[in-house]
Amino acid sequence: MLGILGGGQLARMLAIAAAPLGVRTLVVDSAADACAGQVASLRLADWTDFAALEKFAAEVDVVTFDFENVPADTAHWLAEHVAVFPNPRALAVAQDRLAEKTLFRECGLQTPAFEAVDTREDLERALAKIGAPSILKTRRLGYDGKGQFRIKQLSDADAAWETLGANAHGLILEAFVPFERELSVLAVRTRHGDFRVWPLTQNWHTDGVLSMSLAPAPEVGGLQARAAALARTLADHLDYVGVFALELFVKDGELLGNEMAPRVHNSGHWTIEGAIASQFENHVRAVLGLPLGDTSARGCSAMFNWIGELPDATPVLNGVDSHWHDYGKQPRPGRKVGHATVCAQDTKTLAARVDEIARALQREEQAAPALKVL
Amino acid sequence: MLGILGGGQLARMLAIAAAPLGVRTLVVDSAADACAGQVASLRLADWTDFAALEKFAAEVDVVTFDFENVPADTAHWLAEHVAVFPNPRALAVAQDRLAEKTLFRECGLQTPAFEAVDTREDLERALAKIGAPSILKTRRLGYDGKGQFRIKQLSDADAAWETLGANAHGLILEAFVPFERELSVLAVRTRHGDFRVWPLTQNWHTDGVLSMSLAPAPEVGGLQARAAALARTLADHLDYVGVFALELFVKDGELLGNEMAPRVHNSGHWTIEGAIASQFENHVRAVLGLPLGDTSARGCSAMFNWIGELPDATPVLNGVDSHWHDYGKQPRPGRKVGHATVCAQDTKTLAARVDEIARALQREEQAAPALKVL
Ligand SMILES: Nc1ncnc2c1ncn2[C@@H]1O[C@H](COP(=O)(O)OP(=O)(O)OP(=O)(O)O)[C@@H](O)[C@H]1O
Ligand SMILES: Nc1ncnc2c1ncn2[C@@H]1O[C@H](COP(=O)(O)OP(=O)(O)OP(=O)(O)O)[C@@H](O)[C@H]1O
Ligand SMILES: [Mg+2]
Ligand SMILES: [Mg+2]
Repeated sequence: MLGILGGGQLARMLAIAAAPLGVRTLVVDSAADACAGQVASLRLADWTDFAALEKFAAEVDVVTFDFENVPADTAHWLAEHVAVFPNPRALAVAQDRLAEKTLFRECGLQTPAFEAVDTREDLERALAKIGAPSILKTRRLGYDGKGQFRIKQLSDADAAWETLGANAHGLILEAFVPFERELSVLAVRTRHGDFRVWPLTQNWHTDGVLSMSLAPAPEVGGLQARAAALARTLADHLDYVGVFALELFVKDGELLGNEMAPRVHNSGHWTIEGAIASQFENHVRAVLGLPLGDTSARGCSAMFNWIGELPDATPVLNGVDSHWHDYGKQPRPGRKVGHATVCAQDTKTLAARVDEIARALQREEQAAPALKVL
Repeated sequence: MLGILGGGQLARMLAIAAAPLGVRTLVVDSAADACAGQVASLRLADWTDFAALEKFAAEVDVVTFDFENVPADTAHWLAEHVAVFPNPRALAVAQDRLAEKTLFRECGLQTPAFEAVDTREDLERALAKIGAPSILKTRRLGYDGKGQFRIKQLSDADAAWETLGANAHGLILEAFVPFERELSVLAVRTRHGDFRVWPLTQNWHTDGVLSMSLAPAPEVGGLQARAAALARTLADHLDYVGVFALELFVKDGELLGNEMAPRVHNSGHWTIEGAIASQFENHVRAVLGLPLGDTSARGCSAMFNWIGELPDATPVLNGVDSHWHDYGKQPRPGRKVGHATVCAQDTKTLAARVDEIARALQREEQAAPALKVL
């Protein structure tokens, strides 16, 4: 039995990938309508309910995460009672933007300039060094662009502090990088240290939320090998087990590390149809101690993310080699409720298919940046 | 909500395919450990428990089947309360080898010579016409080669009658066909009459149970179009909605109809990885009134069926583009407990991959017939 903390769409897709491997899934979530509960067993409990966690730990062979912001106490407690992958230390590093970026640099991955900010004076000092434009972010608990304030000019400092200054977990100021593009490398490492990466993915965000992905990212040249090597160094350093995503900016042709997601990742959803083994299957394999599946791409893929509510499914259902993913969640502004993956053997055909679906859905704006590089 | 009568591996794979379409699944089975219950909601009930069926019918949008031998009364009763696909008439025809073969002939599909047998005298008369070798089969409720007696010579008649004569549902005597090969055509038809077939599959049986499948079946030439046309005629005739399999013998290069399975079929399991849309996804689409997905093959695929118990998974997990399917069932002699699909871009590579896995598992005998034609 695979145990997952969190019962969202990532847990749902993990459970679907686990079933053919003969692996049953038990998810823990505090919401009765957690969408993974539609395809897995659901235990209703808070992550700090240690009585429930004790029962859970006794029932599962291994615990993993659908959500990286599981309290450190919970992860540590669990790790004393059952195998937990990724390990709590790796999780802790990935939960803290400061620890994460510090580690990136130690591992040879450059990052945007950054400074820790705990007080209003810190912010002033940091701004003096980094300047504007820059981004003030909470060190912890941010996701989908939440907990961020964009400082366009130095006079925005007060507003930024007003919005985020009360944050008990500390802040980080990062230089704003006018990047050429955003990439992510999806990687997986087993309990024995076997390591594989999928081809690099190119990503586009809208309001801090992933909007489109394209894989393999076009014309990456040596960046593929460089990103893979950096991901491996990081994973080995953390004795990381499972899938993770390393989010990268490309600036002047060089890679800068943005953040690391210690779990399967939205930018890897294309691997369900677009790779021989998906990120979900390989995460299950890795945490259970099974050998890894092949991370090669089958042709090329583009993913549309559906945020807030689902569009009409028909153009995707009718599209050639186009695949619909409804997470079974209630619509809500800003919520990730589904995605669609469009595949093809070559980028020209892919562009035509993406274009057709985007037009039919009046989502030309969403598809435009990906179409530009296809 | 998709309702399925029967909670075996077919329902399980249907539920897994339904989830990304945003469709939840409720299966009815009388066994608490029905393996579909691991990924879908399970209602414990007998198919003749009409109180339970009434509740079930009220909860689901459409009902379909994991098992064709659902009692006719149940199917008819359900069809008066909820949309049922395939319709009870189609189900009834496919449940009866005599009705089925009669329909095949009406639709222009030749069959082995056959005669209805209800009495010992009928058997004598039928043997006088058909001769030996022949096969005495129950008209109803047979599966995996059960309910069959092979009459090698006329003097086997007494033994055949002793074994099957008490059968209340009647018998059928069929000429034994020394076929060149066995094929199946997987087809799907929507509520609106849209129709698609997957490429023909070649099948090998051991003791009446499917052992290996290969798709697309090599060198079928005009048989593909002919099989597709016959499948369409049958489906239109029955106003069939959903996926079905038509099992065919090839004799002197001509097609003979063996039987029709009114459901997703073991010989179509390769479509999960080997086709753009799987038989499971298209069955869900068809019965729910959604447009069909693409039935084209991606490269070529071979499927090993695992009967009785699972072999060691490692060679498949380590195999390139090889996919493991454990149904989560208890091992039991003769039971279908899983399968593995091996894919490749060309038949030569496929042969090498199949050969490697077969050797590692000491399953050379199982793979040999498929390797011979690859
Ligand atoms: N320093 C930066 N310079 C330029 N753009 C940035 C910077 N930091 C973040 N962004 C933009 O905002 C997006 C979201 O930021 P980040 O990844 O830090 O936030 P998040 O809340 O963890 O988001 P997600 O959960 O989607 O990964 C980035 O993918 C990038 O497009
Ligand atoms: N008339 C026949 N001539 C030659 N072989 C036959 C004949 N009928 C059946 N067989 C062989 O036995 C196998 C199983 O027979 P059949 O399909 O009738 O049984 P079943 O119990 O419905 O099996 P399944 O559920 O596996 O389809 C066939 O696939 C074929 O290999
Ligand atoms: Mg991010
Ligand atoms: Mg058969």
